[in-house]
Amino acid sequence: MSTDWGLLEPAGARGFEASSDDAVLQAMLSVEAALLLAWGGGQEAADAVTDAVSGDSVVVDRAVLVDGVIRDGVPVVALVASLHASFDLRGLPTEHLHAGATSQDVVDSALVLVAQRSLADVRAGLVSISLRLRAEATTHAASLRLARTLGRDAAPSTLGVLFAGWLDAVGSVIERLDRLDYPVQYAGAVGTGEQADRHGGRSGAVDEIRAALAAGLGLDDPGRSWQTDRAPVLDIAAVAAGTSVALGRIGRELTALSSEQIGVLGLASSGASSAMPHKRNPVEAVAMTTAGLQVPGLLSTVAASSLGVDERPAGDWHASWSPLRSLLRGALGATVAADHVFHGLDVHPAAALRDLERANGFGRDDAATIAASSRIVEAAVARSIRIVGHPAPTGRGPRP
Amino acid sequence: MSTDWGLLEPAGARGFEASSDDAVLQAMLSVEAALLLAWGGGQEAADAVTDAVSGDSVVVDRAVLVDGVIRDGVPVVALVASLHASFDLRGLPTEHLHAGATSQDVVDSALVLVAQRSLADVRAGLVSISLRLRAEATTHAASLRLARTLGRDAAPSTLGVLFAGWLDAVGSVIERLDRLDYPVQYAGAVGTGEQADRHGGRSGAVDEIRAALAAGLGLDDPGRSWQTDRAPVLDIAAVAAGTSVALGRIGRELTALSSEQIGVLGLASSGASSAMPHKRNPVEAVAMTTAGLQVPGLLSTVAASSLGVDERPAGDWHASWSPLRSLLRGALGATVAADHVFHGLDVHPAAALRDLERANGFGRDDAATIAASSRIVEAAVARSIRIVGHPAPTGRGPRP
Amino acid sequence: MSTDWGLLEPAGARGFEASSDDAVLQAMLSVEAALLLAWGGGQEAADAVTDAVSGDSVVVDRAVLVDGVIRDGVPVVALVASLHASFDLRGLPTEHLHAGATSQDVVDSALVLVAQRSLADVRAGLVSISLRLRAEATTHAASLRLARTLGRDAAPSTLGVLFAGWLDAVGSVIERLDRLDYPVQYAGAVGTGEQADRHGGRSGAVDEIRAALAAGLGLDDPGRSWQTDRAPVLDIAAVAAGTSVALGRIGRELTALSSEQIGVLGLASSGASSAMPHKRNPVEAVAMTTAGLQVPGLLSTVAASSLGVDERPAGDWHASWSPLRSLLRGALGATVAADHVFHGLDVHPAAALRDLERANGFGRDDAATIAASSRIVEAAVARSIRIVGHPAPTGRGPRP
Amino acid sequence: MSTDWGLLEPAGARGFEASSDDAVLQAMLSVEAALLLAWGGGQEAADAVTDAVSGDSVVVDRAVLVDGVIRDGVPVVALVASLHASFDLRGLPTEHLHAGATSQDVVDSALVLVAQRSLADVRAGLVSISLRLRAEATTHAASLRLARTLGRDAAPSTLGVLFAGWLDAVGSVIERLDRLDYPVQYAGAVGTGEQADRHGGRSGAVDEIRAALAAGLGLDDPGRSWQTDRAPVLDIAAVAAGTSVALGRIGRELTALSSEQIGVLGLASSGASSAMPHKRNPVEAVAMTTAGLQVPGLLSTVAASSLGVDERPAGDWHASWSPLRSLLRGALGATVAADHVFHGLDVHPAAALRDLERANGFGRDDAATIAASSRIVEAAVARSIRIVGHPAPTGRGPRP
Repeated sequence: MSTDWGLLEPAGARGFEASSDDAVLQAMLSVEAALLLAWGGGQEAADAVTDAVSGDSVVVDRAVLVDGVIRDGVPVVALVASLHASFDLRGLPTEHLHAGATSQDVVDSALVLVAQRSLADVRAGLVSISLRLRAEATTHAASLRLARTLGRDAAPSTLGVLFAGWLDAVGSVIERLDRLDYPVQYAGAVGTGEQADRHGGRSGAVDEIRAALAAGLGLDDPGRSWQTDRAPVLDIAAVAAGTSVALGRIGRELTALSSEQIGVLGLASSGASSAMPHKRNPVEAVAMTTAGLQVPGLLSTVAASSLGVDERPAGDWHASWSPLRSLLRGALGATVAADHVFHGLDVHPAAALRDLERANGFGRDDAATIAASSRIVEAAVARSIRIVGHPAPTGRGPRP
Repeated sequence: MSTDWGLLEPAGARGFEASSDDAVLQAMLSVEAALLLAWGGGQEAADAVTDAVSGDSVVVDRAVLVDGVIRDGVPVVALVASLHASFDLRGLPTEHLHAGATSQDVVDSALVLVAQRSLADVRAGLVSISLRLRAEATTHAASLRLARTLGRDAAPSTLGVLFAGWLDAVGSVIERLDRLDYPVQYAGAVGTGEQADRHGGRSGAVDEIRAALAAGLGLDDPGRSWQTDRAPVLDIAAVAAGTSVALGRIGRELTALSSEQIGVLGLASSGASSAMPHKRNPVEAVAMTTAGLQVPGLLSTVAASSLGVDERPAGDWHASWSPLRSLLRGALGATVAADHVFHGLDVHPAAALRDLERANGFGRDDAATIAASSRIVEAAVARSIRIVGHPAPTGRGPRP
Repeated sequence: MSTDWGLLEPAGARGFEASSDDAVLQAMLSVEAALLLAWGGGQEAADAVTDAVSGDSVVVDRAVLVDGVIRDGVPVVALVASLHASFDLRGLPTEHLHAGATSQDVVDSALVLVAQRSLADVRAGLVSISLRLRAEATTHAASLRLARTLGRDAAPSTLGVLFAGWLDAVGSVIERLDRLDYPVQYAGAVGTGEQADRHGGRSGAVDEIRAALAAGLGLDDPGRSWQTDRAPVLDIAAVAAGTSVALGRIGRELTALSSEQIGVLGLASSGASSAMPHKRNPVEAVAMTTAGLQVPGLLSTVAASSLGVDERPAGDWHASWSPLRSLLRGALGATVAADHVFHGLDVHPAAALRDLERANGFGRDDAATIAASSRIVEAAVARSIRIVGHPAPTGRGPRP
Repeated sequence: MSTDWGLLEPAGARGFEASSDDAVLQAMLSVEAALLLAWGGGQEAADAVTDAVSGDSVVVDRAVLVDGVIRDGVPVVALVASLHASFDLRGLPTEHLHAGATSQDVVDSALVLVAQRSLADVRAGLVSISLRLRAEATTHAASLRLARTLGRDAAPSTLGVLFAGWLDAVGSVIERLDRLDYPVQYAGAVGTGEQADRHGGRSGAVDEIRAALAAGLGLDDPGRSWQTDRAPVLDIAAVAAGTSVALGRIGRELTALSSEQIGVLGLASSGASSAMPHKRNPVEAVAMTTAGLQVPGLLSTVAASSLGVDERPAGDWHASWSPLRSLLRGALGATVAADHVFHGLDVHPAAALRDLERANGFGRDDAATIAASSRIVEAAVARSIRIVGHPAPTGRGPRP
């Protein structure tokens, strides 16, 4: 079976595992297991589902799932068939397997689960970055530098304002992450929940099972089916996109500010060149930028896929899976890269001052700019504290 | 001077005025006027600014502004020059004109103002649509219909569930509209506010003026400069995009469900064909779909433009103006079209039943589906009330 | 009537006229006039059509067309009605007006006509630029400079190689422009041409009229109807996009290479800042970049619109008009800006050498690099001559 | 090591192998091997490179390459290091390994190679489809059907015109495939070829080696370096995109025309539903649509990546790898799905006639429409023969 493993994803390679096909498959199994539990199918059966791809018990064969994707257009039909076969072999009751569910319930809930986990890692990384940026902004509130607009020398600012701006951008992302819902999806073939009601023997069973499923998975119970209202998916996509865009911009600025011409920042990167052994490339900053540059296209596809008609569209929904995953992967990859960068950042205030003084006529308005800078840094730090509080240092150094 | 006036915008033509170049120019003048007032420039001077393009007093010549856009890359330099010349002629003091501001402050604040106004109209339209959908969903909670998935007959549902789904989607958009911030931007050339502080003669003047400017314009005071953190713009873009996507999907379903083959809905459209005089096209539904289909590309450009570097990027920021405006225009156009559709909608439950009965084997599970439908409709109406309350009917009929 | 006139299009303002709504309307009239002529309707009637919006004879009222766009989803129904009314008034025979045509025939053919004209201007500009770049590349084939990769000093190259690379990129665009077809569209309501055959009284009349229409308009006769096969539109969009992308990259490099830090190039731009009177912004380079940054979203919408179903889709086709026009407008705007830049370009080989020498360890491999550069420049000039020949100088200086 | 293997790619799963990371890696090794041969490194050494990931000789460890991607931003540094180590172990001379090359040469050339191979498979599939469509169009030239526009019954056409339209669209894609260049890239660190010249001991060595490399790989020799002029990549992307868009539209129409309401076509699909055992989904048509829907976003990213500056940009180039691959994968997956569909297609002319007669007032103009249809079908078949000739039947049945 042919595979992808990160060869062509310089940004995503850092966030690959959390949203790999293997991880998504595991999330699908988590959904099926939680559904079994919600219907009272018992822990043993649920464990049999969750463990279906781990260790030696190769209950679910990846090649069979790929054949299923090709044959059925979704992997879930083949997945459920494999689970049925395995349950039969082990003498487990299959009655509640996939009960009341349709393929979309499993894929949507699994992708939300993967999103929740990926974005939790993203948030942790952004908090770690925020702490560094608070410190850098405060330290360098009075370090004058030259600001640029339209590719030209513009006017004096400070390194503190630069870091405060990055802190603001990272804080904006965290704010949006914290507003996200991670709703479970469960409503059966056409969204009425009628199959669940019938399986449960009472009208309203679907609401109870959906609530239990949400609780079991640690997801939100939206109180409704959102299979045709893709707003929750667009929200997740937009926030993941916003993460990579924010870090992508910072990545570009890191690259520029650490260039030999400006040299205001030093990056600890060790990126080698295959043609120029002397060269050290700003690999993490480039990875951040790469993730950001891939966002617009990916986000556009998720938005486009929301236009699908009927209770499940003929292609639109399917088109959203891969770009949604890529957005999560890029966001996590960019965050890991950024966390690495900021934990190895060198700041060179003297170079910043030289750069300012080189620009004719600048370097005179120090007091006013420094006063303004202090207020901006204070405001940014206060805003960051409002958003994420004073988290205890995690002791985590730069990621590998 | 060549102009565009809606010839190529079947969706946007309905929302053209609110975000035309004329409207954006007027918003720029509002920003300059409010800034004058905030600095104590007086009402007479402020009025002179606001009225600069109205009536006979052609203080600001559009052709001069276009020349300015070409020469300076932004219209603000020429705009401010025109205002200066006009003030000189009228003997008004120019001291506080554009004080402490940079072009980006004016363009960004003006675009946010246009967004706020456009999206207020969008919200009003969506509330109007919600009221209709609540009524339709309730009325048809027990009207069985055939649901489709993957382009195929699937299983019984009801017209109530259909309308509840649309109500949910519209409600999701309103929810997101209500969470939006409309922040003013004011920080001067490189975002430090140092020029405002100098003009005001004290550190912190920029914060006071920004707060006054926000109050004067009815915008939010973000407590900071967001010229490099484009999250607020991406938020506005994403919500406008979400509007058109939600309505675009509904437009597609309206087209399909009112087709001769299905005929479950009747649209009051009168769209004529230049080749087939007998034909009536679902023009409003098509306009909704058109707006939705343009969203992904427009949203992607706004996201891409957020990657710009420096205190103002060399092109990225500029690239965002037009797609942001197009997103607002499309959202408003789609909303007006949808409001029109829903106020002229005919529902044909008998046709829905026939469609269901045609599909072999369906039409038996009525009681269960109807029970499920009732719960779904109730939940959707309750959610809509939670989101927008019980607004008084506006008495507004379908827009022209 | 509200209008747009270029306020928010720093790139497009330079190419606005050629593809304004006014220009598209005139192209639609050209199509209707050529169709009249093809059917033997006579020159007087054809002139009455062509002149319908010129001078005082306001036969076609823009506001009426906008109402038509809103009412019918296309402007053509109202346009044809206006022409009918005008013909009736003037006693002209209406028999052949719009004969055998459908709205899509008129809109598609008109947009192709606008594309052909806009891209002819683009080509002329690119040829003019090519001549300048040939000269610069040849002049500076031995002027050493520092090449950069991944935002870092890399290895020696020459200014000649830089200009040769731009020449290559511009040549690639011209090559693709020269391969484009500009097919007329004419096939009636559902693409069979049956209405034209009936109007002409014989099977095959549609082919004759389509050929005559193509000849009359100076378009290609595709020998078929392409109303559902959007490949010709995607081709035009891709080449217009390729223009802005190529010039957008060059714009970014112009901005960087003319920065105070590098200073290898000097731009004659006079772009003023509203906040920093001393500053001169690289306005044309920024306009080029802006056009390039808007391409991906616009191109994506044209591609997406090709997915529409049926003999004319319910929204997809409509969604393509505006982005196609914007691609043309951006390409022309970027070309005009680039032509302006290159006719005012200062090249500073001494600064390039200083930049190279600053980079530690470089400046030693001169002979080898210069030899390589000479070969590259020669090859690029030869390729450019192969593509566009030795056009006579147009005497045209930089555009305003 | 986590992997992706097609779980989330219902379209791409059918074209996965040809462009998997494994296939791209193999193509990179082909490039390094051909380069060795071009420099006279000998067949044994070249074989040692080509075989580096096959069978038991795990010279190149995927995990090591992923670490390299993360550390260096490209896999090539680690790949070359692995090859060096392996050559040292086996006593092979390393002198010509990667000589004169930079990472971009290897990645770009390998991706072009993967494109060439993938698109050769695409072309073969499209030719196979064309033959089927020629036959269907000819067979059904006189089978009347109802054409639809804007989601409404429009006017009579024939099944022949429908198939001729698809044939035209597929032919347009083949035409564009046949115009594509697949240029090798080889120019060293900054595009001057100076390293190759030095390695070869003479100016111009780079041109000879590039020509030999092209010949060895079966690629085109562009006579230049295109590392900064991304037109060739945008061409490949646009044609791959055009493939999926053309097939995506056909997929949508296949879904609609085979629906229970219309039933003009019958698809042999066996796609099962996890919730509705009675249901058969049009899985291949949905896969075609999915590929088409993902095109706009992917194409936009490739276009955006062309805007990168410097001799190699800091992220833009990297951002293009994955979407370019996805475009190839989608195009191949859609083609395989379409080939499968068309080799199992049932056509129901009687249903088409019923559908036409249902529509009030139609069914009267038979002779004129049939005459027009015959001409259209003839023209389409002639055009297809002009484009692809009369290929011998391949004997290949529907792909699995």
